[in-house]
Amino acid sequence: MTDVPAGALMAEEIREQPTVLARLLGRGADEIGAAAALIRERDPRFVLLVARGTSDHAALYAKYLIEITLGLPCGLASPSTVGLFDAPIRHASDVLVIAVSQSGHSPDLVTYVAGWRAAGATTVCAVNDPSSPLALGCDAVIDVRAGTERAVAATKTFTTEMLALWMLVTAWSGNSLDTAAALPGLVSGLAADPAGIAEIAHRYRFTDRVILTGRGYAYPVAREGALKLMETSYLAAHAFSGADLLHGPIAMVDTSTPVLAVAPVGTGARSMVETMEELRGRSIDVVSIGGGLAGVASVVVDLPALPEELAPIAAAIPLQWLAWQLAVDRGCDPDQPRSLNKVTRTR
Amino acid sequence: MTDVPAGALMAEEIREQPTVLARLLGRGADEIGAAAALIRERDPRFVLLVARGTSDHAALYAKYLIEITLGLPCGLASPSTVGLFDAPIRHASDVLVIAVSQSGHSPDLVTYVAGWRAAGATTVCAVNDPSSPLALGCDAVIDVRAGTERAVAATKTFTTEMLALWMLVTAWSGNSLDTAAALPGLVSGLAADPAGIAEIAHRYRFTDRVILTGRGYAYPVAREGALKLMETSYLAAHAFSGADLLHGPIAMVDTSTPVLAVAPVGTGARSMVETMEELRGRSIDVVSIGGGLAGVASVVVDLPALPEELAPIAAAIPLQWLAWQLAVDRGCDPDQPRSLNKVTRTR
Repeated sequence: MTDVPAGALMAEEIREQPTVLARLLGRGADEIGAAAALIRERDPRFVLLVARGTSDHAALYAKYLIEITLGLPCGLASPSTVGLFDAPIRHASDVLVIAVSQSGHSPDLVTYVAGWRAAGATTVCAVNDPSSPLALGCDAVIDVRAGTERAVAATKTFTTEMLALWMLVTAWSGNSLDTAAALPGLVSGLAADPAGIAEIAHRYRFTDRVILTGRGYAYPVAREGALKLMETSYLAAHAFSGADLLHGPIAMVDTSTPVLAVAPVGTGARSMVETMEELRGRSIDVVSIGGGLAGVASVVVDLPALPEELAPIAAAIPLQWLAWQLAVDRGCDPDQPRSLNKVTRTR
Repeated sequence: MTDVPAGALMAEEIREQPTVLARLLGRGADEIGAAAALIRERDPRFVLLVARGTSDHAALYAKYLIEITLGLPCGLASPSTVGLFDAPIRHASDVLVIAVSQSGHSPDLVTYVAGWRAAGATTVCAVNDPSSPLALGCDAVIDVRAGTERAVAATKTFTTEMLALWMLVTAWSGNSLDTAAALPGLVSGLAADPAGIAEIAHRYRFTDRVILTGRGYAYPVAREGALKLMETSYLAAHAFSGADLLHGPIAMVDTSTPVLAVAPVGTGARSMVETMEELRGRSIDVVSIGGGLAGVASVVVDLPALPEELAPIAAAIPLQWLAWQLAVDRGCDPDQPRSLNKVTRTR
């Protein structure tokens, strides 16, 4: 990759998102409909989501969708319990396991899914490689169709994983996928270039820390934004839910720490107004990704009008650009962060 | 509190832990036995744990216990789904909800538990105030009997919550509580004074960042250690599971960032050896809390010999002292961190 300018791959993949999201909506619908039909037939009573890293944030987004849309009890799995600690598996026939992975190669996920499937669970995965060991080990496979992702920092696989999981939950609950038809077009401006967030990157060029926050559907995007900033710019980026921020971490926030709130207009953002007003009262920068904190924040990044449950897919994009811009400005290569490989094989 | 030296309350409460742990083992056993009997009678098929802040780390510890000991599918709840987003609740009669809270007053937890109980779930809580609204709203109440906790940074309520949850899972699975009988005596040296970790605090006096890690039962204590450092010393402290560290965050770790591994001897620590060797190879400080990484770490903090599932209760204590010592050395008051109140009321 020596002939590629720093960050060129990540930038290209951020820009591809409207195209790959549209492809998933079109070509993925049948496959997702079949997965949803299988799930309805099996009628699981509990859902376990299993993933690592960026994909874990897409899984957390799905957890909110499943709890709020379907009312099913749902948990994020700790894969080590099966892989390392030989946990027994009970009540598997009641359980749907949804694995989310870009590569589909991480041995701990493959082992976890294999254990639950052998015990009788229904297993579905969302992956970017339908011939991967993880995909081959599941009852139903959703190919997120993001195309090859060459930058180490995941971007288009994150938003396609989110959309694939939204489509799965929506189809499963019997609702129409048409709600998302406009999404690719609506995010095309955000994805086209980093100009919209250049000013924010300029302002935070010298910060060492940043706090991200969000509530409900938006919280996983705050988590992913923090990971992106850590892995591309080596910032000390923390993410807390708008509620957990008050249980301790707020003590570390001072005027040298900007707070980026993932805040599309809606219930989640409304619940954070009071906390963000308190931070503003202490002269702390609050950036609202979305108009949900428009009356409170120092800076607002506009998002297209989308239902609250779909808006986080759009909100992910300006945070990707922010991570990219800060990395480039600081002389880092977001395509090839130090110490990282594209496929992470954890046991 | 003007007549109390900075940190005096937190230090006193750290020192009380052998006493309050012994009290819980003695006086709490009947109450916990009754809660376990109720759970066995109801025979839940899934467990949801709900908590915030420090108590959420005790809940995560319980999640590992439940998955590994009982083989039940288990999840950490997102309380906002019920409280903010009006999620429907299905299959509640299959579900055990375990709430964990120091104060028992946070409205989001009270609302979450009330919603599930009304729908037919079995509800149990571990609290330090058995007359709190949360306790009054549960089918069974476990009083962690930590006594009044006056320092804002929770210490003895964390370890008593962990022990109470260990006792509950152990009684529920029909095993003997005697395994923990020696715990209070075994941690008395760790709790007595901060001398054992003074050298570590001295070395990290000027760091701005620290990474905590752990795997399995020990990972929740890494999370709690990070929170303690954030809230008392305002450090940028991150916690990652030993596996997640490789999925991105490791890029931000450089020679100015010490890594504190919660590593009692056992399976969890063994799974981290390779990653820690890699960090050491990059001249990064690795401190092993426990002897599990003794061959790899730059510094080892000894822990008493305990089963791997109980060792995290002991491992919490040197991290409390480290947070205390760093705060005092930096001129902060760990009894009264800026911006925090003892009872956090989130909705």
